[in-house]
Amino acid sequence: MIYNLLHNIKNQDITYIPENRVTGRLSGHSPCTNWANPKNWPHRHHPIKNANSVGPKPRPAVFLLTFGKQQPQKQSDMNRICKLFGIRYPIIQGGMVWCSGWRLAAAVSQAGGLGLLGAGSMHPETLVEHIRKMKVATNRPWGVNVPLMYPEIDRLMDILIREEVKIVFTSAGSPKKFTPMLHEAGVTVAHVVSSSKFARKCEEAGVDAIVAEGFEAGGHNGREETTTLTLIPQVRRATGLPVVAAGGIGSGEAMLAAMALGAEGVQIGTLFALSAESSASEAFKQRCLALDEGGTMLCLKKLSPTRLVRNGLFDKVAEAEARGANSEELRDILGKAASKRGIFEGDTEQGELEIGQIASSVDAIRPAGDIVRQLVEDFRKAQKDVAAIDF
Amino acid sequence: MIYNLLHNIKNQDITYIPENRVTGRLSGHSPCTNWANPKNWPHRHHPIKNANSVGPKPRPAVFLLTFGKQQPQKQSDMNRICKLFGIRYPIIQGGMVWCSGWRLAAAVSQAGGLGLLGAGSMHPETLVEHIRKMKVATNRPWGVNVPLMYPEIDRLMDILIREEVKIVFTSAGSPKKFTPMLHEAGVTVAHVVSSSKFARKCEEAGVDAIVAEGFEAGGHNGREETTTLTLIPQVRRATGLPVVAAGGIGSGEAMLAAMALGAEGVQIGTLFALSAESSASEAFKQRCLALDEGGTMLCLKKLSPTRLVRNGLFDKVAEAEARGANSEELRDILGKAASKRGIFEGDTEQGELEIGQIASSVDAIRPAGDIVRQLVEDFRKAQKDVAAIDF
Repeated sequence: MIYNLLHNIKNQDITYIPENRVTGRLSGHSPCTNWANPKNWPHRHHPIKNANSVGPKPRPAVFLLTFGKQQPQKQSDMNRICKLFGIRYPIIQGGMVWCSGWRLAAAVSQAGGLGLLGAGSMHPETLVEHIRKMKVATNRPWGVNVPLMYPEIDRLMDILIREEVKIVFTSAGSPKKFTPMLHEAGVTVAHVVSSSKFARKCEEAGVDAIVAEGFEAGGHNGREETTTLTLIPQVRRATGLPVVAAGGIGSGEAMLAAMALGAEGVQIGTLFALSAESSASEAFKQRCLALDEGGTMLCLKKLSPTRLVRNGLFDKVAEAEARGANSEELRDILGKAASKRGIFEGDTEQGELEIGQIASSVDAIRPAGDIVRQLVEDFRKAQKDVAAIDF
Repeated sequence: MIYNLLHNIKNQDITYIPENRVTGRLSGHSPCTNWANPKNWPHRHHPIKNANSVGPKPRPAVFLLTFGKQQPQKQSDMNRICKLFGIRYPIIQGGMVWCSGWRLAAAVSQAGGLGLLGAGSMHPETLVEHIRKMKVATNRPWGVNVPLMYPEIDRLMDILIREEVKIVFTSAGSPKKFTPMLHEAGVTVAHVVSSSKFARKCEEAGVDAIVAEGFEAGGHNGREETTTLTLIPQVRRATGLPVVAAGGIGSGEAMLAAMALGAEGVQIGTLFALSAESSASEAFKQRCLALDEGGTMLCLKKLSPTRLVRNGLFDKVAEAEARGANSEELRDILGKAASKRGIFEGDTEQGELEIGQIASSVDAIRPAGDIVRQLVEDFRKAQKDVAAIDF
């Protein structure tokens, strides 16, 4: 789900994500390389418009002076993901095709997480619109997810720099080429991987954080099929960079599990794809809510492994794969614009429905801000619960 | 890995697991239905022979009377897996074909976990031998893992009851038929599942605990490909029985992660398959130690989904599957006694090597007791680490 389907992009299957008219003025972010410094946060100068202004204040990443027995909290003790992105909670909303436009990303950032626009399903012009609306909708840090195999990638990068986007998550390609360029423009860069090997390459490329995504994640997926539980400790050992866990994280308890394994933050797709602010169709959301365990499956391994809902289209793919169909035939079965048809237009039987395995745990469409708050609350409770385990 | 390959059993590909001669007398366990009661532990009457007698004492599952501010620990607060099986740590060694004979199981039980004999790769006569040696080797609780599709299952059940085995883990079949019979004989029964649906069926069948095993586990595996991270919370919600997490658990941190998700214990296969006491061949162990991420893959989905090392045999299977080979052809490619050939005899290229995804994290062959101790130590450290997470 984190990057666009190439066959869609190639077919120019990219349109506007419909949204309400935004009347607020555009915010002119001043370039700031250190988001951990509250002085660099733009919120004093850019009042929130058209967005939920309720939300926790980002906690300044500075020494907290306390009295009595408590020790002052050193900056080095702080969660590195929060510090790197200047966010309150180490919760990142995955940039997903057809789901994460400005409304979802803004809601997550407003609630103290990191919202990401999913550039994968946007024409360059559409992306510009969403970026500008984001600047109006929130004064909190946010970013853009960019699949590096995007056909007009150079144009996209120019837009990100020109529009002074501060945080970019790259995926589906090598971070070597663009990371130095983005750094030069003061952008913080994270890259998504599915193995330790690529995590090491990310470190060589100089990225600032790594998202390690397991087999249970929705949409596009690694070839090695390593699950989040087995992947995170290995990526943790392979790199000194802060690691964000992705895939299968659908609760505060799972967030704690990921952090016990060595992640310093989580990237969550499925919960936010099925949130109120997600631009996915209602039909898609309802179909995903009704899923049971086993309702999604990794397929299309001869093209690019992708986790899909087992609907009519999936059945055709599975039947073809069982008899040894080649990649060309599989491409024909998918047809054009399959993920747009499924996720955005709501053709839940013949469209390509990308969602994570954890969808079978989701039972309601909720506002993204509530999801963030619930994650944090459940995480804190889980902290107490595991501390009390005794044997 | 938890149950035998049917094609092996059918071909009577079952032999002795070689072992040292045991000179100690056989222990005559008196039937005891409540292992939580220390009075029922047989160790006073049955001195340890031929086994490492060093190990933590099981903690009695009774009220602990303390003074001062501390509250007495209620029995209801105790870990239910420890209480149910009368063990010190909620760590269960998976009963694995060609790996878990009496020496491995005894070492785990001696260290405070629960050792399981893997009946799947044993002739009934061999199982009797191993049971009798277990009784001599340890006075701690232990059990037997039985795949319910074992061809001589009725004979096997008779043996378990006649030999007064106290704990049985069943798998690969319905627990409905045998659970009442085992209960009548005073046996504690756990059943292995890969979905909430089967967890509910286990509860209906009256089992005492559920092992929920995810996609990352070695050997035979569920059809729904649900990973441990996504499976455990769903099984937790589906049943009130104590849940044991299995699949991908290779460290104390992962053990804590599983327990944060709602498990009350863990079943560990891969680490113990690669331990000093495992009866697998040295060649198998070394091949598994050298695995990288992606070194195992779930295949044979047209037969029974099985996670195998990607060796020469796997390549043949994968090639056949890619061109749509049917189940008969796949069976021919495997040939007879494939897992015995691979795991036990050490044909690491043309044998069937069953091991979990987490093998790529294992870097040394260690005594099983050390593995248990390290798991507990790392679990306790992880408890402190996650309690200290602050954002």
